[in-house]
Amino acid sequence: MVNKIMETAVFLIQCKDQRGIVSRISEFVFRYNGNIIQSDQHTTDPENGQFFMRLEFCFDPDFVSHKHLEDEFGILAKTLNAQWQIHYVRQRLRMGILVSKQDHCLLDILYQWKSNELAVDIPFVISNHEDVRECVEHYGIPFFCYSMDGISKTEQESNILSMITGTTDFIVLARYMQILSESFITSFNKPIINIHHSFLPSFKGANPYRQAYERGVKLIGATSHYVTADLDEGPIIEQVVDRVSHRDNVDTLMRKGKKLEQIALANALRAHTEFRILRYSNKTIVFS
Amino acid sequence: MVNKIMETAVFLIQCKDQRGIVSRISEFVFRYNGNIIQSDQHTTDPENGQFFMRLEFCFDPDFVSHKHLEDEFGILAKTLNAQWQIHYVRQRLRMGILVSKQDHCLLDILYQWKSNELAVDIPFVISNHEDVRECVEHYGIPFFCYSMDGISKTEQESNILSMITGTTDFIVLARYMQILSESFITSFNKPIINIHHSFLPSFKGANPYRQAYERGVKLIGATSHYVTADLDEGPIIEQVVDRVSHRDNVDTLMRKGKKLEQIALANALRAHTEFRILRYSNKTIVFS
Amino acid sequence: MVNKIMETAVFLIQCKDQRGIVSRISEFVFRYNGNIIQSDQHTTDPENGQFFMRLEFCFDPDFVSHKHLEDEFGILAKTLNAQWQIHYVRQRLRMGILVSKQDHCLLDILYQWKSNELAVDIPFVISNHEDVRECVEHYGIPFFCYSMDGISKTEQESNILSMITGTTDFIVLARYMQILSESFITSFNKPIINIHHSFLPSFKGANPYRQAYERGVKLIGATSHYVTADLDEGPIIEQVVDRVSHRDNVDTLMRKGKKLEQIALANALRAHTEFRILRYSNKTIVFS
Amino acid sequence: MVNKIMETAVFLIQCKDQRGIVSRISEFVFRYNGNIIQSDQHTTDPENGQFFMRLEFCFDPDFVSHKHLEDEFGILAKTLNAQWQIHYVRQRLRMGILVSKQDHCLLDILYQWKSNELAVDIPFVISNHEDVRECVEHYGIPFFCYSMDGISKTEQESNILSMITGTTDFIVLARYMQILSESFITSFNKPIINIHHSFLPSFKGANPYRQAYERGVKLIGATSHYVTADLDEGPIIEQVVDRVSHRDNVDTLMRKGKKLEQIALANALRAHTEFRILRYSNKTIVFS
Repeated sequence: MVNKIMETAVFLIQCKDQRGIVSRISEFVFRYNGNIIQSDQHTTDPENGQFFMRLEFCFDPDFVSHKHLEDEFGILAKTLNAQWQIHYVRQRLRMGILVSKQDHCLLDILYQWKSNELAVDIPFVISNHEDVRECVEHYGIPFFCYSMDGISKTEQESNILSMITGTTDFIVLARYMQILSESFITSFNKPIINIHHSFLPSFKGANPYRQAYERGVKLIGATSHYVTADLDEGPIIEQVVDRVSHRDNVDTLMRKGKKLEQIALANALRAHTEFRILRYSNKTIVFS
Repeated sequence: MVNKIMETAVFLIQCKDQRGIVSRISEFVFRYNGNIIQSDQHTTDPENGQFFMRLEFCFDPDFVSHKHLEDEFGILAKTLNAQWQIHYVRQRLRMGILVSKQDHCLLDILYQWKSNELAVDIPFVISNHEDVRECVEHYGIPFFCYSMDGISKTEQESNILSMITGTTDFIVLARYMQILSESFITSFNKPIINIHHSFLPSFKGANPYRQAYERGVKLIGATSHYVTADLDEGPIIEQVVDRVSHRDNVDTLMRKGKKLEQIALANALRAHTEFRILRYSNKTIVFS
Repeated sequence: MVNKIMETAVFLIQCKDQRGIVSRISEFVFRYNGNIIQSDQHTTDPENGQFFMRLEFCFDPDFVSHKHLEDEFGILAKTLNAQWQIHYVRQRLRMGILVSKQDHCLLDILYQWKSNELAVDIPFVISNHEDVRECVEHYGIPFFCYSMDGISKTEQESNILSMITGTTDFIVLARYMQILSESFITSFNKPIINIHHSFLPSFKGANPYRQAYERGVKLIGATSHYVTADLDEGPIIEQVVDRVSHRDNVDTLMRKGKKLEQIALANALRAHTEFRILRYSNKTIVFS
Repeated sequence: MVNKIMETAVFLIQCKDQRGIVSRISEFVFRYNGNIIQSDQHTTDPENGQFFMRLEFCFDPDFVSHKHLEDEFGILAKTLNAQWQIHYVRQRLRMGILVSKQDHCLLDILYQWKSNELAVDIPFVISNHEDVRECVEHYGIPFFCYSMDGISKTEQESNILSMITGTTDFIVLARYMQILSESFITSFNKPIINIHHSFLPSFKGANPYRQAYERGVKLIGATSHYVTADLDEGPIIEQVVDRVSHRDNVDTLMRKGKKLEQIALANALRAHTEFRILRYSNKTIVFS
């Protein structure tokens, strides 16, 4: 009986460290009859640090409404001078996908979505090329192509922006080979997750696999990060590597890299959609 | 000023999951002016599960004594029907080392101890052979040899037992090639950490590297676990692996394995001495 | 001009070690105007061992025909008392796929095949269920369902056997949840590659992820191996692992394991189709 | 009988690719009654590439002298226009060690040397500080301190140079915190192997762990490479990584990094001393 009406939510909280925070927040949950499922906490420095918390709990929405919960928590947060968000697990995030021609990350994402391994809604996939239309539509997802042909970059970005604004909670660049302008990023003002095909900060910019080949590295990597106006400099979410050798050429590096890109991006998307990530400075806290 | 007198402690708590536990425990810390440095919590199953918590906090021992803290927490724990331990970080655990002839894990432990990377006291090293005496004494640690020659296993174990009882908080078997009797384990009644030179549960028992070679595996591993009366079946703390190939023979597997054994054991000892491990069923929770 | 007519082939050779083998084999290639692209050699034991060689070379088929090359090499091999095979790289292996309901390995294989990352022909996919029909046919590959319903296992195997005999060079079990009979394996008499969802020899048999969960391991794995009559005991080709923790339950182990299964199987198929694998005793030599 | 007098040697050969090289080289070994133990070969590009070979063989020095072998191979190599070296396995390389204050790599090397896992002679250890004297002398190895105090860098390098010239076959910088001048490197004119405490090319220069911490990476690494006049830009031999998280601070990165540095350097030294490395452009071929 009871189970039917319970709901799960996640608080993400950050503030200056101070005595009694955990106590006050957990008391808050208790006061509203909530039960903590998982709580993670991190303090950057015991003496003078920042406090970060992720608190996953279930509660009875008939006992306390979303609005009431949020209003009351807002009051508590104010006394802590804390930034906070609440996410209701049933309300799946709406994830827009931007992609160019390469489809390996896209297909991996769509497969996980279809298999219920990635709990998001995907309102559409946008590309600057037609190449992936068929495989997107095969999954029953609307596909829109905003080509760069014959229009300015500003115009193209503006078209995409009007598409994604209000319809998405975040965007994933699943190998989107255009650099987004600072104005685009600022206007959208929601998280954008990218997959970079190198072990950042090595091999920023173009052709990282060729750069890796030229340098003769013995491991290659892939990095998923939040996009900021500084290209390839945003907060890193996840990195993975694989061993390579003198036997590898640029082609085999690219082939091995595709698998790494899938894994790094999938892990990053899972962490983001499970509300496990807090950002500060130019870094991430990713609770496991 | 204040810093001089603050002390750090860790609670390890487990009980049946119930509403309000985190709230009551964190309120307890707050009540005694403590500040939570790190808290980790795990519930095995949201509906009907077990609750596990590690809570690291600092407090002023002039404000609340160890005894008072423990007495009061004991009362709270009773109402939760919880098992619990408290560890004061300043009181380093006393770690007895048992070893046979192979010295690679021993030396790695002693080096970390000397470098203050492993915060333990080492009252002595015990062996059934004389081989490692010099390197132990070089570190200024007492060395005792309890040979198996001319005495029964029961007698030898009894000698060791009287040595370690009351003088150690836990024992590490840093490649100790004798199987401890059930009676020894029961009598000692404190944690014993072993390093097994295979990726358990593969290749239990003797000569795991030969077994791995015969089976033709492509990865070898090492496993650190708590010792129970069931040989090689105790709760696993840490496992690591490395890649091998047809080029490896038993000797090179052993050489690669030595590094794995060092790493797995070092990680396990760090987790244990930082009070990050909770045991349940035949498993471990290792908070990161 | 010249490039148009050159062809690439691979010799796989094994025999008792003896002086002059490399010299005689490489002289053979030279005699027929071949150029060695890559040669790998392994001797199990310098004193009294077995010799294994993979030799990839290009040659002019107008200068020496396949038949002549094979006849002449046969004569040489006889004097060495060697087992040998030749593979012409242009003649892609015909790979039959057997699968049940789970499609993650199947889709990964089909994607690599479509992207020309796996150089095989796939004459058909066979399943004992209808579940994956659509995704197979979407790739333009014939799909056949041989259900177990209402027929004996012997009958079902016999149907499959008549399908794959003469039409395939090897079979991959891409999560085929039936145990093949010894008689099936003997009758087919060609390589069968399986993916087992554990780090063999741990957790043989059914429900390996549940077994891993119960045992509380800190790493899970996947193993690709050749199938022999001894279930889960055939020669191992590739193994990969990933880290897990107390936070994982059987479901998340399965999700992480799916990625491991894809990777281990893809690596094994690549090695097999590039003719990099030699089998001896119950092991493999996998040249990199 | 025969075994007593057999000797093992390794050829390292590189030249422009051409038909018949393997045949001619292996015929050469055969002609002198040698038996190939292991041969590895790599061609950078089948059409127009560079050829690299490592050939390990045993021969009877009573049948053919070192001088005769070398003279005759010199003639063959000339016709191939090849660079080549021969190494007799019994003649252990003389490895000079330079170190500053940190001893973790030094101790790991000395331990492997003592355990016969690293087949080198160590004529001495040189440092610019006194810190590691005791642990070096404990191993019975001469220790020399060339302090920077009161003398110019040129003078100090000149002292070291006169020490290592003629007495060593290569030098390892086991955490030597001085940058060697181009003139030093040129004058010594033998291999110098360094361990850099980052995943190159990321975080070159000073304080790589702090750089990694600031950037918020999720993996840290260590790189062993040959030293060239371009700091941190020499040919990479080996790289390893380990996972880190927001829980790590600069201190724990350094602690984890120490283990990585030991592993990367040990692997590089093993490859170098087993004559498995060929250099070209600014890269290495490391035969496994």
